[in-house]
Amino acid sequence: MIVVFTGGTGGTKLVQGLQHIVPPEELTVIVNTGDDIEWWGLHVSPDVDSVLYGLAGLLSKERGWGVEDDSFRCLERMKQLGQASWFSLGDLDLATHLTRTMLLRAGKRLSEATAELAAKFGIRARVLPMSDDRVSTMLDTAKGTLTFQEYFVRERHQVEARAVRFEGAENARPAPGVIESIETAEAIVFAPSNPVTSIGPILAVPGVRQALRETKATVAAVSPIIGGEAVSGPAGVLMTMMGWPSTIAGVAKAYEDFLDVLVADRADEAQALTMSTTGLRVLSTNTIMRSIDDKRELAAFVLGACTAQQNVVG
Amino acid sequence: MIVVFTGGTGGTKLVQGLQHIVPPEELTVIVNTGDDIEWWGLHVSPDVDSVLYGLAGLLSKERGWGVEDDSFRCLERMKQLGQASWFSLGDLDLATHLTRTMLLRAGKRLSEATAELAAKFGIRARVLPMSDDRVSTMLDTAKGTLTFQEYFVRERHQVEARAVRFEGAENARPAPGVIESIETAEAIVFAPSNPVTSIGPILAVPGVRQALRETKATVAAVSPIIGGEAVSGPAGVLMTMMGWPSTIAGVAKAYEDFLDVLVADRADEAQALTMSTTGLRVLSTNTIMRSIDDKRELAAFVLGACTAQQNVVG
Repeated sequence: MIVVFTGGTGGTKLVQGLQHIVPPEELTVIVNTGDDIEWWGLHVSPDVDSVLYGLAGLLSKERGWGVEDDSFRCLERMKQLGQASWFSLGDLDLATHLTRTMLLRAGKRLSEATAELAAKFGIRARVLPMSDDRVSTMLDTAKGTLTFQEYFVRERHQVEARAVRFEGAENARPAPGVIESIETAEAIVFAPSNPVTSIGPILAVPGVRQALRETKATVAAVSPIIGGEAVSGPAGVLMTMMGWPSTIAGVAKAYEDFLDVLVADRADEAQALTMSTTGLRVLSTNTIMRSIDDKRELAAFVLGACTAQQNVVG
Repeated sequence: MIVVFTGGTGGTKLVQGLQHIVPPEELTVIVNTGDDIEWWGLHVSPDVDSVLYGLAGLLSKERGWGVEDDSFRCLERMKQLGQASWFSLGDLDLATHLTRTMLLRAGKRLSEATAELAAKFGIRARVLPMSDDRVSTMLDTAKGTLTFQEYFVRERHQVEARAVRFEGAENARPAPGVIESIETAEAIVFAPSNPVTSIGPILAVPGVRQALRETKATVAAVSPIIGGEAVSGPAGVLMTMMGWPSTIAGVAKAYEDFLDVLVADRADEAQALTMSTTGLRVLSTNTIMRSIDDKRELAAFVLGACTAQQNVVG
């Protein structure tokens, strides 16, 4: 079993790559729900949806989020009706949120609702939200306390962030299957997602970090930082805010207590060469995923590195 | 003040006619909510929406319900996700239901949510749902007990109906403004709506029928029955089920305790001529509303008849 930790758009690309080289019944995706949002009265799970749409072949290539060829007629009308419209839900996308919200109101847990949506989308890999309990990523910023979506989408992450907290995390339980999949995995891959706000919430769920420290599986991460900058989004500034370097060393730092392999981009090859220790191998390859071939090759490289590492340790 | 009682598509046409000849601040529309439905987790008020869309100039001319030039992409996706799809909500239409549902969840009453939607749609006439309390029109049929929408839309009213009841009506209170508007109206007009399931629920709200009996206003009704048959929908068969003739005499029977003027179609002129009594004037004119001119002329005819009657009585 291959287990992937992901959140955000870059992460989904690696999940798509893995989907092409791992049989679906051997792929488990653990997804951030810290940036879930109640929007227009609906429960929206942006990172879960990106994974679902990515695996179902429905993800918009142009936007990197939402559904390909979606329309935004309901959104336009909502705007005319004076409703908030800074968070975009497409007309096709809405069906996902309506369905999820109905399932949750009917008493299903988020993991059950996710499994039901995945099945309807024809997805055979296992997609697990990190927790069925509500965890909210909150940022203390120059404009006051913001939810992740307010910071990321509404403010386009142009406001200074001073601290992050994962509200509700201390009492959250990992969703069914999360700990077991970490314990029994052959390899665990951290997608090139923002370590602070995409992966951070998952690691804040009690038991997850411990399970990662204890698992026999090789744990690899693909750096979302290339040449000292995030491929996209605010990973760099948020890492700096955490007191970590916004370099591949910072990524290693974020995962230091359980990481075995760090995959950096070729642009960081020089730094990568200096970083390997007895506890951590740092490798470099092309990590920019523009085409499906890029995604597949990066996925294969990471799995290859995990297998090699497992043999070294074994 | 002109007060209109309405439900369904025929009723909306007369409301549109009245809108053209009565200043908006002098027009109050009291609308059936007995066929409101919880759909995809949203509160849908089909008759209220028809009135809102009709008054806002947004009503689909082709369908007679929903929004002109709407699309149904979300519906198609809902179908693919295995959700019920026999009740059609368009992508633009969805914004109305999302907004109403949010307002209700935030603690607003249906009448407040309706007023807010009306204002957003630029409507200056007053649109009042019959009650803020839930009243559900239920039909006992050959296929068991059905909600109105199950009977009307899902079964296309092709299943035999045996009885009707208005669940919750006995404890429902008229929405704020309903009784007052009946008491202070100059004229009250019953649109050519189904007397059983469009107007019946409004009359079942305690206090409404009494206020109609006591008002000094002339009460007129336009017959939804022409030549012994409903212009559209199941009004005829439901009137027969109630033990009323499915003729203009049946319409007079439905409203017998408060009706002053019945406006029938020219097709029923012969019967109309025999029906006038000291308590009821029965007039005939063209009641088929195909064009906006038809709507305006019928509205003017009804108001003219009310004014004449008021003078006779006065």
